[in-house]
Amino acid sequence: MPTAILNDYLRRAIERKDYQAVRQFLEEFQAVDLAELLQTVPVDAARELLMYLPVVQRASVFGHLPVDWQSQLTTAMTDKEVSQLLRHLDADEGADLLHVLPENRHDRVLRKIAHAEREALRRLASYEEGTAGAIMTSDYMTVPAEITVGEALDVIRKSAPSAELIYQIYTVDAQYRLIGTLSLRELIMNKPEARIKDVMTTDMVKTKLSAKQEDAAKLISRYDLLSLPVVDDDERLVGIITYDDAMDVAEAEATEDMHKGATIGPLAGNFRDARLFTLYRKRIVWLLLLVFGNLVSGAGIAYYEDTIAAYVVLVFFLPLLIDSGGNAGSQAATLVVRSMATGDIAISDWGKLLLKEVAVASGLGLTMAAAVSLIGAYRGGFDIAWVVALSMICIVMTGSLVGLCLPFILNRLGWDPATASAPLVTTIADASGVLIYFWIANWILHLPAP
Amino acid sequence: MPTAILNDYLRRAIERKDYQAVRQFLEEFQAVDLAELLQTVPVDAARELLMYLPVVQRASVFGHLPVDWQSQLTTAMTDKEVSQLLRHLDADEGADLLHVLPENRHDRVLRKIAHAEREALRRLASYEEGTAGAIMTSDYMTVPAEITVGEALDVIRKSAPSAELIYQIYTVDAQYRLIGTLSLRELIMNKPEARIKDVMTTDMVKTKLSAKQEDAAKLISRYDLLSLPVVDDDERLVGIITYDDAMDVAEAEATEDMHKGATIGPLAGNFRDARLFTLYRKRIVWLLLLVFGNLVSGAGIAYYEDTIAAYVVLVFFLPLLIDSGGNAGSQAATLVVRSMATGDIAISDWGKLLLKEVAVASGLGLTMAAAVSLIGAYRGGFDIAWVVALSMICIVMTGSLVGLCLPFILNRLGWDPATASAPLVTTIADASGVLIYFWIANWILHLPAP
Repeated sequence: MPTAILNDYLRRAIERKDYQAVRQFLEEFQAVDLAELLQTVPVDAARELLMYLPVVQRASVFGHLPVDWQSQLTTAMTDKEVSQLLRHLDADEGADLLHVLPENRHDRVLRKIAHAEREALRRLASYEEGTAGAIMTSDYMTVPAEITVGEALDVIRKSAPSAELIYQIYTVDAQYRLIGTLSLRELIMNKPEARIKDVMTTDMVKTKLSAKQEDAAKLISRYDLLSLPVVDDDERLVGIITYDDAMDVAEAEATEDMHKGATIGPLAGNFRDARLFTLYRKRIVWLLLLVFGNLVSGAGIAYYEDTIAAYVVLVFFLPLLIDSGGNAGSQAATLVVRSMATGDIAISDWGKLLLKEVAVASGLGLTMAAAVSLIGAYRGGFDIAWVVALSMICIVMTGSLVGLCLPFILNRLGWDPATASAPLVTTIADASGVLIYFWIANWILHLPAP
Repeated sequence: MPTAILNDYLRRAIERKDYQAVRQFLEEFQAVDLAELLQTVPVDAARELLMYLPVVQRASVFGHLPVDWQSQLTTAMTDKEVSQLLRHLDADEGADLLHVLPENRHDRVLRKIAHAEREALRRLASYEEGTAGAIMTSDYMTVPAEITVGEALDVIRKSAPSAELIYQIYTVDAQYRLIGTLSLRELIMNKPEARIKDVMTTDMVKTKLSAKQEDAAKLISRYDLLSLPVVDDDERLVGIITYDDAMDVAEAEATEDMHKGATIGPLAGNFRDARLFTLYRKRIVWLLLLVFGNLVSGAGIAYYEDTIAAYVVLVFFLPLLIDSGGNAGSQAATLVVRSMATGDIAISDWGKLLLKEVAVASGLGLTMAAAVSLIGAYRGGFDIAWVVALSMICIVMTGSLVGLCLPFILNRLGWDPATASAPLVTTIADASGVLIYFWIANWILHLPAP
């Protein structure tokens, strides 16, 4: 329990102003753990602890803090302290910090940084949220194609301290267009006198500045890359995305898709620290929309009011039948949405999958009809059993096909297929379920049409 | 469209037995792309194409194929061809291939491999599915702590071709216990005459053989590692897990959790290639369980049959009310389940989250009650509006709290919290919703208790 340790040992060290002990204590933690620990104490104390660390570690810990903590901490720091942080953060984290600072501090803080670094930060901070540009870093390593492997290793040795990742090296031409890449492993394994241009790979995976961040992350995962070069429209190298950032993006995207699948809007931070009103706002939109969607089910029920009045026993099976359609549909939608997100299925697979879903849903519907017809016979006799079983098959089929098709339709309309959430599919399946059920009941029980 | 190209250019090259052209064509692809392309042709043709490749590339492509393709391809290969593959696959992929081979081929194939390699493969193949042991590789690099940085670089240069990852190097003692680690970056930046033991890090992140694979992947992502050392119960180094395998594990775990969230059992392969009966089997279990769960809702409705007969208009609001509870509950459950999976919340957070959910759910319930009371007034007058609004608040509160608590309860019982799927929460919310709704209706409309 970090808080307990902190409250005890650390507080006493701070009280007796034993900087040495405090620093030693803090240095035992990995940056990400220390960032977590800092979030358990008040902001002022966190700022004080941070200041005990040497500036390189301080920047490393700071980079792991969530945006709102960064914002609060910088408010209490001087311009000089902030610009010091900016200089030591990885370039992509520095650009994120710029987003956090209030407008009027921007220039004051940036003025204290060397020109080249300042421009790189400004540029990085200017790319649109969610694009490859917004998550790339400018701390990568290039070597000229004409030098030898031995010379390249010297270059790397010299610039390693400032680069975020030195295991993949790039070569560019005079216009800074990306022309080749090679890994440090290949460098080490080649003879020192070999020329870079003879040992580099020219056919490499890369991405555009404006590509979606999740697509960039998918390339890194698919090709097992350590870093992915990002080029502008003129094929000029402008940055790299590192594997660790790709992992974070993939995790965030999976979270966003899961939340969408339960009709929750995208949360910027994590659930534990989200504010009450944010949670309310992210949840109420779809809940209200679905209330109105459910009115269709209500209207269907109202339309068949006489049928219900004649056979109140039918209401017993209503939740069971419509929920079954919704559940089968949610399954199909989830399978499709996730497979689309991981790239396992393409839009063109839709016909094949539809046929398959018809077969699977028939099996599911038949099994569930058999189960439910026994209860139907027990509660309402043979006719009711027949109504319930037939309805089950039709409702499960309909629900499954809605679940399967909806993500494809949404995608076609240019929307995110993940919008085909379980609750949305359930609401559609419910409305059609009500109509199917009572229509079949009317027909089999020989009731007059309403 | 790879298939089209294949059918045209490649088929002609094969027909005229132009091996050179075929090989050149194939070598233009990245291994993972070629593996995908192979899956679009019949197995025999795939095997033939694979054989055109030099053995190193062949192994690399083979490693990217799904298990059932590997199995079919090896059936058509000679023992010698299989053992050649085994030798050139990464050790962890080789161990997976051993799982695919029929028992009687195991020994025949292994006998053609050098003793040390054979034992490593056998050991790797013996770890339980889903553990750190099952995804680690034995192709890692160790150096003695006593040698210098320069000597270590020579060792690395020599063994680089056989190691899967050379960017993180480990040191072990005479008992093969893990004592330190350092990155190739640190090696390069240090003076060649420095001793490894003086520059290595001794306090490092590691995992046990029996740790869950998703926990190992989480460590890699949390600490931005390139590889995670795996130790046995005696702290001996037995393998490493590489960052790219961690990415695959994280993706597979997210998929499994999403599927669980929609009551779909874990699929071994991907959705597109899953067999009909597998899909049926993975989906029917929970669908049937939930049918019986929904009988509780049915029983609640049957209990209040007289109330319904007296006020048939109440049925109009039934789907809307109970679905709203289920939807709010699914949101809460999804937020909790995903935060648990990513490690953003711990079991100990439950009290704080409960209070927060009460506040958020009140807000949601009040808003939805306001929306629905208007419709209630329009359809059934003031009394019905009152019944519907009050029910909405209570049902949304109940659903939300069920959704929030269920993952914690399941976790306490030692089950996977992801079992708290949207359909399960909906079914529980439905049953309680029916009871709440009709109880409130009976009370406000002054009906006799059933």
